[in-house]
Amino acid sequence: MISLIALSSCIEAGTLSADSAIREARARIAAQDPAIRAVLRTAPEGPAPAAGPLAGIAVGIKDIIDTADMATEYGSPIYAGWRPRADAAVVARLRALGAVPLAKTATTAFAGLDPCATVNPHDPAHTPGGSSSGSAAAVAAGMLPLALGTQTGGSVIRPAAFCGVAAIKPSFRLIPTVGVKTFSWALDTVGLFARGVPDLARALALIVDRPAIAATEPGAPRIGLCLQPFAGEADADAVAALHRAARAAERAGAEVADLILPEAFALAWEAHPHVQDFEARQALAWEAAQHRARLPARLGPQLDRAQAITTAHYDEARRHAHRARRLLKEMFSGFDAILTVSAVGRAPDRATTGDACFNRLWTLMGVPCVNVPVPGDGLPLGVQVIARFGDDGRALAVAGMIAAALAA
Amino acid sequence: MISLIALSSCIEAGTLSADSAIREARARIAAQDPAIRAVLRTAPEGPAPAAGPLAGIAVGIKDIIDTADMATEYGSPIYAGWRPRADAAVVARLRALGAVPLAKTATTAFAGLDPCATVNPHDPAHTPGGSSSGSAAAVAAGMLPLALGTQTGGSVIRPAAFCGVAAIKPSFRLIPTVGVKTFSWALDTVGLFARGVPDLARALALIVDRPAIAATEPGAPRIGLCLQPFAGEADADAVAALHRAARAAERAGAEVADLILPEAFALAWEAHPHVQDFEARQALAWEAAQHRARLPARLGPQLDRAQAITTAHYDEARRHAHRARRLLKEMFSGFDAILTVSAVGRAPDRATTGDACFNRLWTLMGVPCVNVPVPGDGLPLGVQVIARFGDDGRALAVAGMIAAALAA
Repeated sequence: MISLIALSSCIEAGTLSADSAIREARARIAAQDPAIRAVLRTAPEGPAPAAGPLAGIAVGIKDIIDTADMATEYGSPIYAGWRPRADAAVVARLRALGAVPLAKTATTAFAGLDPCATVNPHDPAHTPGGSSSGSAAAVAAGMLPLALGTQTGGSVIRPAAFCGVAAIKPSFRLIPTVGVKTFSWALDTVGLFARGVPDLARALALIVDRPAIAATEPGAPRIGLCLQPFAGEADADAVAALHRAARAAERAGAEVADLILPEAFALAWEAHPHVQDFEARQALAWEAAQHRARLPARLGPQLDRAQAITTAHYDEARRHAHRARRLLKEMFSGFDAILTVSAVGRAPDRATTGDACFNRLWTLMGVPCVNVPVPGDGLPLGVQVIARFGDDGRALAVAGMIAAALAA
Repeated sequence: MISLIALSSCIEAGTLSADSAIREARARIAAQDPAIRAVLRTAPEGPAPAAGPLAGIAVGIKDIIDTADMATEYGSPIYAGWRPRADAAVVARLRALGAVPLAKTATTAFAGLDPCATVNPHDPAHTPGGSSSGSAAAVAAGMLPLALGTQTGGSVIRPAAFCGVAAIKPSFRLIPTVGVKTFSWALDTVGLFARGVPDLARALALIVDRPAIAATEPGAPRIGLCLQPFAGEADADAVAALHRAARAAERAGAEVADLILPEAFALAWEAHPHVQDFEARQALAWEAAQHRARLPARLGPQLDRAQAITTAHYDEARRHAHRARRLLKEMFSGFDAILTVSAVGRAPDRATTGDACFNRLWTLMGVPCVNVPVPGDGLPLGVQVIARFGDDGRALAVAGMIAAALAA
């Protein structure tokens, strides 16, 4: 994998030109992608911006995010060859920072649950996770130093865990979703993948123009260790990785205590699919009405079933979410961060993209979540560090502290 | 003007076919629009759906709302001839209800402040208001029984007041904004124009599948009469119309009391442009970066100035909004509805689209607002009825009561 910070240092020092850095990214894609299938297409050749804090940084753009210079197909034949007129807001921002949105990365159709062609770089028989499959795999395979994904259930943190890369799902709407194909407007969140937590912090601070995000110190954080029993049981491997991360945090000076989430969170967890699917059936109403037969095997029936969600169900689901958000805000007076598993376990085979059960509560809460890969044998495992809404710098600082302690 | 309810009654009774109703709308557009310039283009000819609760209803779609069968130009030469692939969510919903999205209506560029070519149907020397200029004017001129607009500052209620039609800016996100060009994601709200308040109630209840919206009874509402002094002074005519509406409400059984908004609302009112423009500079980042010279005379400099809004300004503005929203929720325990002016006065000349100063607080609060035309001589005047968040049925019921009392 390639560190964004290391690459930027070389470019700032003048030992590497932005153009060379982008050419090298193209070469890595050409060499490695035929086996990984993470990249759908690359930008037209041309000189890279020489200036800007992200000069020379090639970025993967999940293919539900609009780009003016590359087709954007939302993972669906309904949009084959579709070419948006404008860049999404976050893509325009990357360009303004000197970065090169170089590659469109594979996504499941409309960021749903149907697997796409991308394989896990650690073992091609396994899923890279979804829905931001190509972004996670391209960063894991070392093709790109930075990639954009989106999360509505667990579509950033889960593939990051399966592929063994760092990733952040920031606070809700910290990064604008303008120009991102909508699945659920109350949930869709643009996130980032990179080699390490410091790379994420640097990129996020620049993208949202909040330097404090990269300057937060972890101190001696109080961490709540949380199992989310309402979401089911994680694999023994994943629970062992969680405890390994907790012990590493303690060695680094954190105070770790068990956190039992009250019933309100189980209700919010149950409410998530009602919010998501009630909105998805409206967001994808044109596709369902005009192209039902071209929707894939999981998404089509999911939208059909969503017709049965009443406005009363939706309103109740939103009330549950609202209550849990208020309660979580209070609970954060006792904790600086929450630590939990990023996924059920290691990446399953390619029949599915895995399960978002340990992610969806936090997406609904709108709070920042960071995946920290936990080193070990076999396919990757990850834990997620969660902080209060708007405190993305804290989530990254604590995640960085744990990542460093795990590596020590 | 044409009543949606009257039209639907004829169609349901079989005395008018849906096809004839749509053909008549086309004929009215052909006859009247050359003088009004509200309609930019119409849908390809074809049979209208014969079934559905909105069968035979021709709808005007503001040209920042995507339509798959008609170009969508966002009021800007940057998007000349632009043809979206999909319908916006609300357009797909209208089709599912049997309505015909018949005409794209003129909008100011990107729903900003630069006037477009539409004139006020009551006097072509005057503005129809903006930014939903074409939708308001087309309904006022009797070309269409229903039209969609959007409001970020005052872009639904203000043109409705200037053109003398009923309109609702519903609760924030009650109608999805998927497929609507973004100006400010925290503020943009899809709204409706129609001849009368009952027409709005029927259309909104169907579009959002909430029958209670059309079934709410006003009872004997407690109404807070409010002048918004922080927004400046309304014209004497407008204040007289407000008092006429208040007296009409009392005759109909309402209890009207003066409402003085505390300082928190003045701060929220001041915060609105910071939220709006900080988001607009991101939402329109591609246009500003690639096509600055093609942005119009007001919007270009507005986006330039927005570069100076810091994240700290934005965060503070959002805190002011949040505090005022909470306070407003408490204040509604003493009132069922708020009554205030819809605009400074009558439509000014065509050099501007008027001022959103009496609208923007309520857009920021996310609460439903209904324009009620106040009958009188000269160019139209309107008052707005405001209810608590999510109680769109209440806003419509009280507005309907006042409209009926004013007509009696």
